[in-house]
Amino acid sequence: MILKRKNSGIIIIGDEILSGKTQDTNSRFLSKELGKRGVDVKEITVISDLEVEIINKVKLYSKNYDYVFTTGGIGPTHDDITAYAISRAFNVKYEQNKDAVRILKKHYIKKELTESRLKMSYMPSGSTLIYNPVSAAPGFIIKNVHVFPGVPMILKPMAKEFLGSFLKINILPQVRISTKLSEGIIGQFIGEVQKSNKEISIGSYPYFKSENFGVSLIIKGENRIKLDKVSKMIYEYLKSKSGNPKYF
Amino acid sequence: MILKRKNSGIIIIGDEILSGKTQDTNSRFLSKELGKRGVDVKEITVISDLEVEIINKVKLYSKNYDYVFTTGGIGPTHDDITAYAISRAFNVKYEQNKDAVRILKKHYIKKELTESRLKMSYMPSGSTLIYNPVSAAPGFIIKNVHVFPGVPMILKPMAKEFLGSFLKINILPQVRISTKLSEGIIGQFIGEVQKSNKEISIGSYPYFKSENFGVSLIIKGENRIKLDKVSKMIYEYLKSKSGNPKYF
Repeated sequence: MILKRKNSGIIIIGDEILSGKTQDTNSRFLSKELGKRGVDVKEITVISDLEVEIINKVKLYSKNYDYVFTTGGIGPTHDDITAYAISRAFNVKYEQNKDAVRILKKHYIKKELTESRLKMSYMPSGSTLIYNPVSAAPGFIIKNVHVFPGVPMILKPMAKEFLGSFLKINILPQVRISTKLSEGIIGQFIGEVQKSNKEISIGSYPYFKSENFGVSLIIKGENRIKLDKVSKMIYEYLKSKSGNPKYF
Repeated sequence: MILKRKNSGIIIIGDEILSGKTQDTNSRFLSKELGKRGVDVKEITVISDLEVEIINKVKLYSKNYDYVFTTGGIGPTHDDITAYAISRAFNVKYEQNKDAVRILKKHYIKKELTESRLKMSYMPSGSTLIYNPVSAAPGFIIKNVHVFPGVPMILKPMAKEFLGSFLKINILPQVRISTKLSEGIIGQFIGEVQKSNKEISIGSYPYFKSENFGVSLIIKGENRIKLDKVSKMIYEYLKSKSGNPKYF
């Protein structure tokens, strides 16, 4: 049985990413974890901490994709407006979640639970909490939108924990073949193979490592038999051209 | 005189980024280089190598932003369809550019100028070439859209060279203040300062470095006098709370 793959969109919220101050690594992490579990990421977008931007993007993605994941903007400061904006996107109340308050009270037992920290218990009415194993303040789910914090040290263990119980491992069968030949040499042949095998997707990625260069071909497809056929055809071609192909 | 800042959008094209195979670093590089030159990046999006996706996104961004920058999909292989898709987005012919052919012929004088390599001379009719100091195959400009390759080793020197002549340095005045206090403690005060100083933007970014943690505040604004006033107010507050502030 071939399991149907789902699709998703990722929304990275934060001026620090847009300005180049911070390198986003959350979207790549989520893409990899989702891909392994049968969910293909169709689009990633980085937007600023502006209410109208968050509202519009969340509405659009929630309509277009099976699942939506957001990171950023759910901390304790004035520029953390994701939870409020998502409440507005779905026209539901922005209210204090009792379970979230309980979690925060327990976590801040030795530290002051300031008004800023308590802000992290406010979210769209009807949300389901996402457990945070690092710093307690929970994420949440509303409709098909999954809301995570932006700090990678918190996001990564939290998302891994969540996805582990939420989605079973479902890796799209794939083969990697590397060759020393450049894209300019093999491009036409690969293009023809792709054209006559539409169910298989062939990606071509040049690489440069110190003095070495070459191309890494990633061949993917649900149908294992077709995948093997196409991969073998490419491998034999590269061998015939003395391209020193390697199969992974 | 205060120079008016321009805005821009970045489109990263490539399945290898969406799947998480490759970490995108191009968008951060462009954001930083543009920011220094008075161009704020308002949105970044990562899309797949699909014609319809490229067409729709380029049309939308070209309309919404002063400048658009794309990376990826202008190499020699079958999945490099950016130039073709952008021609379709603007309803112009996809045709061979004579100057690009000349550049490629010169570069491939000792290597075979295969049909795949010649593909890199095709682009939207009426494009202006962007010089590629690394691997010759040029980028191009059509309307307000600037088209670059995806390989970071090529993109980075190429974009730096291009932006250097295209845009003068125009850094938005900014101050950074770090403190050992957490967001949960300072959040409310910072929020109030932000509320009553709308021309200044205050970003709050928690950091974690081995055993250390704290918050880095980035305060920005065109008006240097107001910027200094707000920065001083925050610095004094943090000092009064024994927050060990540092001014950068």
